[in-house]
Amino acid sequence: MSPKITVELLRQLRQAMRNTKYIAEPIQAYIVPSGDAHQSEYIAPCDCRREFICGFNGSAGTAIVTEKHAAMWTDGRYFLQASQQMDNNWTLMKMGLKETLSQEDWLISVLPENSTVGVDPWIIATDQWKNMSKALAGAGHSLVAVQDNLIDAIWMDRPTRPSTKLLTLGLGFTGLTWQDKMTALRSKMAERKISWFVATALDEIAWLFNLRGSDIEYNPVFFAYAIVGMNTIRLFVDIKRLAVPTVREHLQLDTPSKAELSIQTAPYESVFTELQAVCASLVPKEKVWISDKASCALTQVIPKAHRSLIPYTPLCLAKAVKNTTEIQGMKMAHIKDAVALCELFAWLEKEIPKGTVTEISAADKAEELRSQQKDFVGLSFPSISSVGPNGAIIHYRPLPETNRTLSLNEIYLLDSGAQYIDGTTDVTRTMHFGSPSAYEKETFTYVLKGHIAVSAAIFPNGTKGHLLDSFARQALWESGLDYLHGTGHGVGCFLNVHEGPCGISYKTFADEPLEAGMIVSDEPGYYEDGLFGIRIENVVLVVPAKPKYNYRNKGSLTFEPLTLVPIQAKMVNTDILTQKERDWVNEYHRQCRETIGAELERQGRKEALDWLIRETQPIA
Amino acid sequence: MSPKITVELLRQLRQAMRNTKYIAEPIQAYIVPSGDAHQSEYIAPCDCRREFICGFNGSAGTAIVTEKHAAMWTDGRYFLQASQQMDNNWTLMKMGLKETLSQEDWLISVLPENSTVGVDPWIIATDQWKNMSKALAGAGHSLVAVQDNLIDAIWMDRPTRPSTKLLTLGLGFTGLTWQDKMTALRSKMAERKISWFVATALDEIAWLFNLRGSDIEYNPVFFAYAIVGMNTIRLFVDIKRLAVPTVREHLQLDTPSKAELSIQTAPYESVFTELQAVCASLVPKEKVWISDKASCALTQVIPKAHRSLIPYTPLCLAKAVKNTTEIQGMKMAHIKDAVALCELFAWLEKEIPKGTVTEISAADKAEELRSQQKDFVGLSFPSISSVGPNGAIIHYRPLPETNRTLSLNEIYLLDSGAQYIDGTTDVTRTMHFGSPSAYEKETFTYVLKGHIAVSAAIFPNGTKGHLLDSFARQALWESGLDYLHGTGHGVGCFLNVHEGPCGISYKTFADEPLEAGMIVSDEPGYYEDGLFGIRIENVVLVVPAKPKYNYRNKGSLTFEPLTLVPIQAKMVNTDILTQKERDWVNEYHRQCRETIGAELERQGRKEALDWLIRETQPIA
Repeated sequence: MSPKITVELLRQLRQAMRNTKYIAEPIQAYIVPSGDAHQSEYIAPCDCRREFICGFNGSAGTAIVTEKHAAMWTDGRYFLQASQQMDNNWTLMKMGLKETLSQEDWLISVLPENSTVGVDPWIIATDQWKNMSKALAGAGHSLVAVQDNLIDAIWMDRPTRPSTKLLTLGLGFTGLTWQDKMTALRSKMAERKISWFVATALDEIAWLFNLRGSDIEYNPVFFAYAIVGMNTIRLFVDIKRLAVPTVREHLQLDTPSKAELSIQTAPYESVFTELQAVCASLVPKEKVWISDKASCALTQVIPKAHRSLIPYTPLCLAKAVKNTTEIQGMKMAHIKDAVALCELFAWLEKEIPKGTVTEISAADKAEELRSQQKDFVGLSFPSISSVGPNGAIIHYRPLPETNRTLSLNEIYLLDSGAQYIDGTTDVTRTMHFGSPSAYEKETFTYVLKGHIAVSAAIFPNGTKGHLLDSFARQALWESGLDYLHGTGHGVGCFLNVHEGPCGISYKTFADEPLEAGMIVSDEPGYYEDGLFGIRIENVVLVVPAKPKYNYRNKGSLTFEPLTLVPIQAKMVNTDILTQKERDWVNEYHRQCRETIGAELERQGRKEALDWLIRETQPIA
Repeated sequence: MSPKITVELLRQLRQAMRNTKYIAEPIQAYIVPSGDAHQSEYIAPCDCRREFICGFNGSAGTAIVTEKHAAMWTDGRYFLQASQQMDNNWTLMKMGLKETLSQEDWLISVLPENSTVGVDPWIIATDQWKNMSKALAGAGHSLVAVQDNLIDAIWMDRPTRPSTKLLTLGLGFTGLTWQDKMTALRSKMAERKISWFVATALDEIAWLFNLRGSDIEYNPVFFAYAIVGMNTIRLFVDIKRLAVPTVREHLQLDTPSKAELSIQTAPYESVFTELQAVCASLVPKEKVWISDKASCALTQVIPKAHRSLIPYTPLCLAKAVKNTTEIQGMKMAHIKDAVALCELFAWLEKEIPKGTVTEISAADKAEELRSQQKDFVGLSFPSISSVGPNGAIIHYRPLPETNRTLSLNEIYLLDSGAQYIDGTTDVTRTMHFGSPSAYEKETFTYVLKGHIAVSAAIFPNGTKGHLLDSFARQALWESGLDYLHGTGHGVGCFLNVHEGPCGISYKTFADEPLEAGMIVSDEPGYYEDGLFGIRIENVVLVVPAKPKYNYRNKGSLTFEPLTLVPIQAKMVNTDILTQKERDWVNEYHRQCRETIGAELERQGRKEALDWLIRETQPIA
């Protein structure tokens, strides 16, 4: 992978930073955050501004350009990838390392006195704006909103904003009508005496209206905003998309059942002026709920006295706890996904010795096999199909120039998932098709111990996920090893593969307690730069546990794996496992064989079934 | 224990809340925090205002009185005690339970519109003031500083502020002169371009000047403030205390070696006006460091533009990492402490069958035995000497009316510690002098597993203590059990038994990473209300570990127990322990026997030695 040459782009951006066409006074630094106006993690091509300016295309990172410097902050998953994609005009700022300055501290260290720092208020979240603005002010600088995006100003062939076909989801997939969800939302608003709620996160809007789109690759969402009052619903979306009869009927646009469930539609861009109008009509003490992760531009429309910022919206919280229909759908999706992966691994075993399978062709084959399954929509994120040293690039995506051939000599790590209409999957398996070394087996087994420690953990109701993170690391830590990423993230149901408000990470302190019905990933790993990467990931469902006692009637929780794909026994050093851990592996493999075996049989996929049966033999 | 009758006091306080002698306009609520003007955890009798108004005398709790309600917030350690000490004019607010409103939310729920809430700005920390003020403002109320303390106004026989004799500590105890510490502080200030530092925490001031006092029971500190500039040192303390020649010499008050190490002394009360004078002379951009836990009154003296609030001061951080001399002192103190406890337990074994030992007499005996040890100063906190159901009151302190007799039928929990000039101890042992039930042994063993899991944990450099908290709970959680307190706190060296900035707790997210040289407690527990309490506590030193690998050259840490007192084998169900855990117990007991045995022998304490040898037999 060769870095993007950015000399000319940086020259143009710095010119724009001084150009009175965009800003009254020159600015000394310009911040380019990762997200779009909805603070999405994955973004549409038209919003890939940080990638455009620096070349780094990972899912997380912030670029800052000053008159003399250009720096880009990203986390441990991306250190290697970012260093390969950026040219030497850029300094890589490795977040999470003790010696790395924060964006604020770095700006303060490089800026001349009384500097002005600019940012597009639409793509910076309110909480980030606040922190940055306060830190800069404390050092005599100021943060200003630059209304015209300066990257867009120099981006000649910037793509247009997508507006794809909307898909309506019936009760059989959602378990609740959008009217039910609206009523529940309003009762939460009434409980807290809130008059209006502004929905800005794309997955929350998709979930609320039981609609899906494909505006952003991998995430079945569509560009929209919604403003909900106690008797009003306003949906802001490209109006052309609402011309389709199924969509009109689904939203009851022509025949609303009740006045308070009648949806007023308006163009996507009009949210700003409409919110201004709503705010102009507020009476004293009326409150408007908006996420503290919403864009600064929109948040500042709401006068401070009426603004109620919340870390997690009621939609985010409701969406995280899956209902019976959604859980059933997620289970079905994971069975189909496991079928495709069993087929893939059986195929790889046959094909790898021929020397013709590459990271890209293996990923393509996985996609092809998944696409044969019912209600397949697309991938849930770019497949991380990585051989040997590429496996150490935590969010690697194979490109023609990095594409390695799978062999009998190197570890293969495949982290992939799909969107089906009934659910979203995300699974990582790490395999060796020849003879793994003792060291590879040893480290794999530590990772497996961590995976099991989380998956089998029993913990009291009300426990936050971050309290489980160290369980995943204990075996690695005992040997002086670790991994530089969190252990798990929330997973949507035919929605974003990463979602809040729960997760399992040493970093996440604002996570909400785990509840029965929540779905998260369990994915510890171990990485040796230049050698290999190991990760074992299942998607797991939070379920009630019934241990021997019940302290203060609090009740306990544990996890049930939804992912049912064998974990390669060949990679396991069984001597390092306890009997309890061996029992866990055998019970897990029994479930894989029973559930996925039945489906493979039903689909007549004989070779994959043979592979599954062989790979799920009990370990001693 | 009978509750304090507060009808009349509440009537008087509510009258004061409307009295224009104290405040221009009546206030609708008055907050009575726990601490003193230094936000000390343990406080002098003159500062026990919360206890005075509600009767609850635990170390943590905030009382709020409105025109109609009176409520008191405390944490899980104190639920039982608080409910026994307060009469029914008071509502106990159990912090940490989901259904319990925060102080802010409760105030908002009970106050009439546009209410004013008052608090003494000297005894509320800046960060608490900010949060409270913001929350109240958001609901249309306001928080105001009431300069005259309203509790003091109705407290007729309020004790005077103590001013005890100061003790000077030489290099043999401190490892660093106060001049060395001052220089290190100034280099931290220079690093961050800070002109002035205001020290408000009593233990930080005592540590900085290598002085100790006894103004507050159990904590060898003295009432003082310090303001340090790059060329100035101002110490605010009752001037009478400085008349002693040893103190004058120690501080070089008459013969300062260098101008910048010359200490200007001033009366304790003059800190406010002196800080005003310092602030009046500041030039633009000059910064003053003050803890965000300092009093609101003092913090607000510093103009916002010059104020730099820090969660942990450089003194707090430097004090937490003990130097070789301090570590050696702490080890010596723990050996002496273990000698006293071995004697105590041998004595208890003989005396308990006679039916004459009570919680109080056992605690007195422990104090007597400790006082026979060299350089004993006093206890480090009130001994928690508790039998049977009293053991479930986590911070129990035996009183004549609650005093139970030790017997062969009930569990005895002793959590106690002492101040020696060379170090501070804090140890909990839970014992049964007859035959413990299977259930008592089972739960004791889960607690022991948790204790070992923390004590033996290996973790990367840079790990924060809160990431280890779940290790202590894992075995309890697996059986549906838990405990409602943190697992460990920092321990001072001949200073406060509780100190920041490190700790091991699910609650502490602002803790600083553990570093070699830090000292914390490891004290998981299990409590059954009305039946018994179990806790196993050692003080442990953070030391480098040398596991097999060294990921990214980060290095690893682990703990070394400083407390060397046998853990009662009779209480252990060895079947529930893993071989590794049994090995840990045997190795720990070997160290107890070797180190404490030698000292018992040297001191000629034969009975205790016999007891130690018997109690440290290897378990199978």
